Amino acid sequence: MQGTQQPTSPTAAYTPTDRTVPTRSPDRASYDKELVHSILDEAYVCHLGFVRDGAPVVLPTLFGRVGQTLYVHGSTGSRPLRMTGQADPGLPVCLTVTHVDALILARSAFHHSINYRSVVVHGLAYDVTDPEEKRVALDALVDHVVPGRAADSRPANKKELAATAVIRLDLNEVSAKLRTGGVNDEPEDLALPHWAGVVPLRKGYEAPVGDPDLAPGTQLPGYLGAL
Amino acid sequence: MQGTQQPTSPTAAYTPTDRTVPTRSPDRASYDKELVHSILDEAYVCHLGFVRDGAPVVLPTLFGRVGQTLYVHGSTGSRPLRMTGQADPGLPVCLTVTHVDALILARSAFHHSINYRSVVVHGLAYDVTDPEEKRVALDALVDHVVPGRAADSRPANKKELAATAVIRLDLNEVSAKLRTGGVNDEPEDLALPHWAGVVPLRKGYEAPVGDPDLAPGTQLPGYLGAL
Repeated sequence: MQGTQQPTSPTAAYTPTDRTVPTRSPDRASYDKELVHSILDEAYVCHLGFVRDGAPVVLPTLFGRVGQTLYVHGSTGSRPLRMTGQADPGLPVCLTVTHVDALILARSAFHHSINYRSVVVHGLAYDVTDPEEKRVALDALVDHVVPGRAADSRPANKKELAATAVIRLDLNEVSAKLRTGGVNDEPEDLALPHWAGVVPLRKGYEAPVGDPDLAPGTQLPGYLGAL
Repeated sequence: MQGTQQPTSPTAAYTPTDRTVPTRSPDRASYDKELVHSILDEAYVCHLGFVRDGAPVVLPTLFGRVGQTLYVHGSTGSRPLRMTGQADPGLPVCLTVTHVDALILARSAFHHSINYRSVVVHGLAYDVTDPEEKRVALDALVDHVVPGRAADSRPANKKELAATAVIRLDLNEVSAKLRTGGVNDEPEDLALPHWAGVVPLRKGYEAPVGDPDLAPGTQLPGYLGAL
């Protein structure tokens, strides 16, 4: 949703690179910006990868998007954020988002699969030091969880801002990958007695549960109906 | 579910290491094996991180568990699997699994959060070359998606086995991290007019959709009712 407030880039697709062309199933890859943004915006968490002492580290974390830039925040004491602040020119990261849409049960074990939509972003992460960019990024992080929520909450105060680090990762080297559709069994397996088909996963949310200490008269906000 | 078929390890917890003690919110960390296994077994995909040309790569992938070992499979041509086969002694990887259970909407932007359960596994991945271990691993991968499914599908044939690479990652350096509970606003914010509370995410699956070419009389299997 955040992206709709931003000017649209004049080009409609990201440029493939050696790192964003998959070695397997290249027909499932896409570089379409609108598709990439929709997959990113629908995800509650991303998985952020970085290298520490030569070994990979992958951590789940919240994120936000403002146009062609992703933001990740955390405590100033957290490892990847501290490492980004010390990295020159920036910290090499890989940020990945995945939705599992359905289970694909085939007659053959080999053709079992899932329907998914994923986005992989490669690049350098930079510490955000400009106070205005940091404010915009923090709003985007809250709006990413629930669009419209940033305007309906108390903004961070000086102490909270000082305790929060924000890093940015521009969307340049990006690809989406998707599997859609049904079962792809071999023709000779179709007569086997095993059930085969698609099991869609449930999406969305259950009824919101208000905090026991809500101020009297506080109503459930309309934007929660749109989740 | 797979783990229930395996002998239980005599110790109930993984030993913390420098890499598995979080720098932030250490009270949210756990090394309990049962908890770690339950988080792993409930996940459809993991995010596998490895280092390529000095930069991190994070890819979503299916996985399976047999006792204290995780298995990832893929085409023999896929990058991380090929790299594992060439690595000596093994390929450093980080395998992470995350469930988002609920959105936490606080009155303050700062205290917005999510309830989550994650597991991070560090270690060396090894190519599985023993045919019997490979067969057990492939069954675990199918049973991980739907417990009981491996026995109700056609096992991989020679050609399929030859096209499939499997890597193993032992559960030694492992931690879970969780946030549960409700909103943690500052006392002075409680009277603010913003709605605050917990928004639980929907889990489970919708009605399975049978393949149009099912053999006549094929019934929906009972294990799909247990998902």
